[in-house]
Amino acid sequence: MTSKIEVSWKGQMLFESVAPEGNVMIDAAEEIGGQGKGLRPKALMLTSLAGCTAMDIASLLKKMRAEVEDFKIDVEANLTDEQPKYYDKVHVIYKFYGSDFKKDKIVKAVNLSVDRYCGVMEMFRGFAKVTTEILYFEQ
Amino acid sequence: MTSKIEVSWKGQMLFESVAPEGNVMIDAAEEIGGQGKGLRPKALMLTSLAGCTAMDIASLLKKMRAEVEDFKIDVEANLTDEQPKYYDKVHVIYKFYGSDFKKDKIVKAVNLSVDRYCGVMEMFRGFAKVTTEILYFEQ
Repeated sequence: MTSKIEVSWKGQMLFESVAPEGNVMIDAAEEIGGQGKGLRPKALMLTSLAGCTAMDIASLLKKMRAEVEDFKIDVEANLTDEQPKYYDKVHVIYKFYGSDFKKDKIVKAVNLSVDRYCGVMEMFRGFAKVTTEILYFEQ
Repeated sequence: MTSKIEVSWKGQMLFESVAPEGNVMIDAAEEIGGQGKGLRPKALMLTSLAGCTAMDIASLLKKMRAEVEDFKIDVEANLTDEQPKYYDKVHVIYKFYGSDFKKDKIVKAVNLSVDRYCGVMEMFRGFAKVTTEILYFEQ
């Protein structure tokens, strides 16, 4: 399967990315000429990772009948100091909110996403040390 | 330097990513339960790549006094068939629009981004074969 996107220049450091399912504005940090009108390219990598594994979790918890009231996924990443700067350490925190958690199923869902289904996580393992953590918040 | 983003569940396969510089909605394809309300996670990886190298090009062409009327960057990527699906081949097409192109400087700018500055491209080389191409459109 082939994916395709196109990015168009909108002047200075502002760009618009056009994909079949929607557009997104991308802009640089203000200290390097951006105007704060769009997302930073590197942060989009982390959004991609969180979104990919989040969809697995939503789908797997439903299939496993282990629904939670809510969940969030945080991604923290360390950017190297030298050019080209890249993320060498990435930590993914799965935060589940609710009560009477089916923790065995939740752990299984997270592991299935991390090890088998999440293609973006597989890509990240190509350049970063990826660690994960699960937190439960009783409500 | 540490980057951080958080993704929150908005029901079904819809998620909102929150970063300091802006939010983005992420949704699955309709065939796997999405509602077409947001971008696909994997496509965001390609947007990140195009945006990163695009900013280098805008900045370098200005510094080199080799401005063009316009430019676009296309990214085409092949997704593997097996789970976890990832991009194994990625082709980046730099499209420059204008006249009297300073082609030696343009090639130099592209090469500097590809080889030295674009951290996202460095990350992509960790999991994909990345190829590039330059096209000129006389206007």
